Amino acid sequence: MNYYNPLPLTKLIEQFAALPGIGKKTAQRLAFHVLTLSDSEAKEFSDAILQAHSKIKNCDVCKNFTDKKVCDICDDMSRDRTTICVVEDPRDVAAFERTGKYNGLYHVLHGLISPIDGKGPEELFIKELLTRLSDGEVKEVIIATDPTVQGEATAVYLSRLIKPLGIKVSRLAFGIPIGSSLEYTDEVTLFKALENRSSL
Amino acid sequence: MNYYNPLPLTKLIEQFAALPGIGKKTAQRLAFHVLTLSDSEAKEFSDAILQAHSKIKNCDVCKNFTDKKVCDICDDMSRDRTTICVVEDPRDVAAFERTGKYNGLYHVLHGLISPIDGKGPEELFIKELLTRLSDGEVKEVIIATDPTVQGEATAVYLSRLIKPLGIKVSRLAFGIPIGSSLEYTDEVTLFKALENRSSL
Repeated sequence: MNYYNPLPLTKLIEQFAALPGIGKKTAQRLAFHVLTLSDSEAKEFSDAILQAHSKIKNCDVCKNFTDKKVCDICDDMSRDRTTICVVEDPRDVAAFERTGKYNGLYHVLHGLISPIDGKGPEELFIKELLTRLSDGEVKEVIIATDPTVQGEATAVYLSRLIKPLGIKVSRLAFGIPIGSSLEYTDEVTLFKALENRSSL
Repeated sequence: MNYYNPLPLTKLIEQFAALPGIGKKTAQRLAFHVLTLSDSEAKEFSDAILQAHSKIKNCDVCKNFTDKKVCDICDDMSRDRTTICVVEDPRDVAAFERTGKYNGLYHVLHGLISPIDGKGPEELFIKELLTRLSDGEVKEVIIATDPTVQGEATAVYLSRLIKPLGIKVSRLAFGIPIGSSLEYTDEVTLFKALENRSSL
C-alpha cells in the first residue's frame, strides 16, 4: 500500500489480504474495523488467533481438528463405531455434523490424491485409516470425497485397498440437489441421477 | 457453532464472523486457514492486530489515522496548505491519494450528521476543522462527503459555517462515472450531469 497508510495499519491490511478470498479492498475494510475495536476486543481477537493456532491439533484417531488428544466425536461412546465416513477436510466433518443425521465416526484425509499437484497417497492419512480398520470392528467405510477428478481417484484408490479386508465400501449418492431445477442441472449430474434412480 | 468444533477454533471463527461483511461460512474458512499457518506467521498476524490497534491514533491536525502525532500528509511541507478536502472517513483519504492528483490537505470528520442515528455535528470533528480555518491560511474547503442524504446534510451544514469566514467552499462534481453507460445511469445522476454540463 502507499505511504499515506501508516506502517502498522499497512501491515495489518497485508495480513488480512493474505487470507484466502480476501482482496485488497476487503482487507482494508477489515483492518479499519480492527481500529474501531476496544482494547480488550483487539486483545481477544489477537489471542484467539494464537490460541487456536497453538492448541488445535489433529485427533490421534480420526485426524479431525481437536484441542484434545482424541476428539469429542471419537471419544463419544454413543456413536456407531462400526461405520467410518472418510472426508477430505475437517470442514466436511462440520458439514456432516450439521445434518445431525450421521452417527458414525469420521476419518479426515487432509487432502486428496492429486498427481498433477504432486500429491500422492503417502501424503494423506491413509495408512492411519488402514490401521483403524485392522481390528475388525468397522463394518462399513463411506467414502465422502468430492465428486471431482481428485475426489473420484481417491475414492477408487481407497476402495481397492479396503474391499480386500472384507469391509463394505460405499460412496455418497450423486444426483439432483434438493430445491434445484432440472432445467439448470448439468448433464453429468442428470445422468448420475438417472442412473441411480430409485423405485417409488 | 456446534460441539464438534473445539473451543479455541470456535472462538476464532466467532472473532472473524464479528468482522463487517464476513459471514459464518467465510469466518470458518478464514479460521481454518489460520490453522495452516506456520507458528511465526500466526504470531505475526496476531501481533499485527495488537500493533495496529495500539499504535494507530487520529492525527492531531486532520484526524486521519497515523502512528505519529501529526500524519505524513499534514507534515508534508510540499503540499498545498491553502486547500482542505473534508471527508467522512480515513478510507476516503486513501481513495483520494490513489488518484495522485490532489496535493492539498485533508480533514477527516469520522462520520456524517445523521439525526436518524442520533448523530449530531458535535460528535464529528467539526470544531477542530473550524479551529484549523481560523488562522486565515486556508483559501478553499472542498467538501467531499458522499452524495447521500447524510452526506448532503453535512455538506450544507459545513458550508453554512465556513462561508461566513470568507473561505471558498466547494463540493465534488456529480455526474456520469467514467466508463459507465448512459442507458444504465439513474435519473438523478443523469439530471446532475445535465445540470453541471461543461462547454467544449
